[in-house]
Amino acid sequence: MTRLTIRIDFDSNRHVGHGKIRLLELIGEHGSISQAAREMKMSYRRAWLLADEVNRMFSEPVLETQHGGAGGGHARLTTFGHALVGHYRAIETQALKSFKKQIVELERRLRPAAPI
Amino acid sequence: MTRLTIRIDFDSNRHVGHGKIRLLELIGEHGSISQAAREMKMSYRRAWLLADEVNRMFSEPVLETQHGGAGGGHARLTTFGHALVGHYRAIETQALKSFKKQIVELERRLRPAAPI
Repeated sequence: MTRLTIRIDFDSNRHVGHGKIRLLELIGEHGSISQAAREMKMSYRRAWLLADEVNRMFSEPVLETQHGGAGGGHARLTTFGHALVGHYRAIETQALKSFKKQIVELERRLRPAAPI
Repeated sequence: MTRLTIRIDFDSNRHVGHGKIRLLELIGEHGSISQAAREMKMSYRRAWLLADEVNRMFSEPVLETQHGGAGGGHARLTTFGHALVGHYRAIETQALKSFKKQIVELERRLRPAAPI
């Protein structure tokens, strides 16, 4: 099944794409950066840096974190964070629909998979 | 100026995105893989591997190469190669137009650049 992903470069050092959005979604889902990092098979440090990068990109944060006690910290998306993820996914879905014809055209031209 | 780029994943190991398409464009422009590689600041080997990957992806090649004499080899896009680049760029342009509103909305939320 063909997937279309998009990346938005606001300027030379600020962009959002599939990776950051997926990370935000997983943080929202699990309430935890470390759990989201595990699921994306990246280090906690890398996940934290990516989340921090998005957090500093806009005029309001996308994430709120709480340093916890015994159970570790907790993280959740802000209202704006949810809106950012929603916007991005809406653009992606719409793009896949809008470009269905061109994509099917390219799919038809794919080389058939080699027999195993 | 915000840019939107797309990536199409046909399956888990076949995709086209900004990098490969830009490489094809530059090869078409210069008639040379090594010149295109230089302009993209990548090794000749990496450019060749990427071009070869796209060349094997579809039922017909996107590139034709000729091993040259003293002047080195020559490469050019096939008709299908031109069509692939054209399709991709058309989708990109259309996407940027279609999602202008959502993108402007995100741009408004960007944190103002820090004074230098």
